[in-house]
Amino acid sequence: MTARETGRSVRAFAPATVANLGSGFDVLGLALMGAGDTVTARLVAAPGVRIARVSGDGGRLPTDAARNTAGIAATHTLRRAGMDAGIELEIAKGLPLGSGLGSSAASAAAAAWAVNVLLGSPLRRAELIAPCVEAEAAVSGRHADNVAPALLGGLVLVRSMDPTDIVRLPVPEGLTVAVVTPVHEVSTREARAVLPASVPLAQFVRSTANLAAFVSACFSGDLALLARAMEDDVVTPARAQLIPGCREVIAAALAAGALGSSISGSGPTVFALCRSERSATDAAAAMCAAFQRAGLESSAMLSPADCPGAREA
Amino acid sequence: MTARETGRSVRAFAPATVANLGSGFDVLGLALMGAGDTVTARLVAAPGVRIARVSGDGGRLPTDAARNTAGIAATHTLRRAGMDAGIELEIAKGLPLGSGLGSSAASAAAAAWAVNVLLGSPLRRAELIAPCVEAEAAVSGRHADNVAPALLGGLVLVRSMDPTDIVRLPVPEGLTVAVVTPVHEVSTREARAVLPASVPLAQFVRSTANLAAFVSACFSGDLALLARAMEDDVVTPARAQLIPGCREVIAAALAAGALGSSISGSGPTVFALCRSERSATDAAAAMCAAFQRAGLESSAMLSPADCPGAREA
Repeated sequence: MTARETGRSVRAFAPATVANLGSGFDVLGLALMGAGDTVTARLVAAPGVRIARVSGDGGRLPTDAARNTAGIAATHTLRRAGMDAGIELEIAKGLPLGSGLGSSAASAAAAAWAVNVLLGSPLRRAELIAPCVEAEAAVSGRHADNVAPALLGGLVLVRSMDPTDIVRLPVPEGLTVAVVTPVHEVSTREARAVLPASVPLAQFVRSTANLAAFVSACFSGDLALLARAMEDDVVTPARAQLIPGCREVIAAALAAGALGSSISGSGPTVFALCRSERSATDAAAAMCAAFQRAGLESSAMLSPADCPGAREA
Repeated sequence: MTARETGRSVRAFAPATVANLGSGFDVLGLALMGAGDTVTARLVAAPGVRIARVSGDGGRLPTDAARNTAGIAATHTLRRAGMDAGIELEIAKGLPLGSGLGSSAASAAAAAWAVNVLLGSPLRRAELIAPCVEAEAAVSGRHADNVAPALLGGLVLVRSMDPTDIVRLPVPEGLTVAVVTPVHEVSTREARAVLPASVPLAQFVRSTANLAAFVSACFSGDLALLARAMEDDVVTPARAQLIPGCREVIAAALAAGALGSSISGSGPTVFALCRSERSATDAAAAMCAAFQRAGLESSAMLSPADCPGAREA
């Protein structure tokens, strides 16, 4: 870096994501439209990564770069690019914390994207996944089902994280996501703690079959199959107990015509996959009403199921 | 049935099948070319199902229709069709018992097919799966990954057995199976007994991801992904211990250029998926040589990966 470049900055946005999608625990995720985090990376003289400012988090996020997912992702992006620069980050949170919408992943992806562009894009888009997984590992566990769609966009399958092996899946035309977030916090650590340590073989077989059928349905556009294939009796029932009214919200979505409904990431957000925007509107209204009956206020958003990932903003 | 019809007969053939295919334990299977069982069903005056003759089994199969998979499948086909007929079966085994090539499923599928045609085809092809699953359940466990491809042909995914929910998957062009059967018997019951009762969550995630990637590769034709996605650390390692030289045979197939290799069904047959007939020829030779080094004689066959299922013969 020459002194002349100091002060130059890049601002990047990365979207909210829905992970798991029913039968795809830790391996499926998709990017949403609209909501997300914005990170500005600026070249400074002092080497290393520093966080200058975080906004929109109510003062809850650490500003120590070694403990903040944006900071960690930026550090690992620098390291992977083999470059030695001084970088200052400004993080504008657009996503609530602990909502199950991939808040930590969005910050990581936006930071990795901003830093990479600032460095002259030495890394390809997919190469930013590993730095972002390091960030996730520090706060919520080693998984890529939020960071991969936050970076790449669309619906993605994480076949392997080490080495990184990500598959983009086609999205059936018109597929729309209804996303309903109640005013209720679930810690990612707690949501991991309620998971079973192991899965009985019969359930294992059902789960693999469902996820395989989900992938088949994405390619063939068979929405009836997609609906059947979202069934999950491993993760969703375990996590539902952490979210008041969860079972009723899922039932309400299905009764309103959703193809499938489950918990987004570790919750408390519940999502529904729907065949059209109109169907998603109905599902969202029914889901909000069901949360209301369980005593929780909630907010809804709709998004196409095939949305872009991280980008300059 | 009128008296006039007595004596009329239908002969049907159902093919050998490879089940599991690496990461698809109990849910994936494909039909092979050439080898299979033939069953003749004849209308007789006395009601019920009777087995007149079994050949090619060395006298090892029960001729009691209630204990023979062809007999059980015929009985359940009659029941499902809601018809009351007298049926006599002749079973010509073309497949060795306990070889992992779906011998019991081939007899069941051929019998169900013959009986259904004899009755005037009251049931659709897919409706014959349930009667055949009843037959499998009586001898080797409740699974459809052999009977579904034996009936339907091609590469199939069993999403659910109750209700029956089968998905035909596309087969990448040129994909060829090398199938090597050593002179060594593995009982299906023993092969089930060595399976883990449950699967640790991290392995569960890897397995679901691999099977999902396998399905994606079938649709996209990405053979490199298909190769990576056949990885299985749950079932294959457990069953490999029952087959002398198994690990070496799989390694030999891969070294010879196979995309992936694993145990067919409950073994001892080992198969390899290959990108071409030429590659499958090389893999088969390498696999036979590896079995030889482990002290076992073996025989090999090659088959396209997309072959027809049960049919009149």
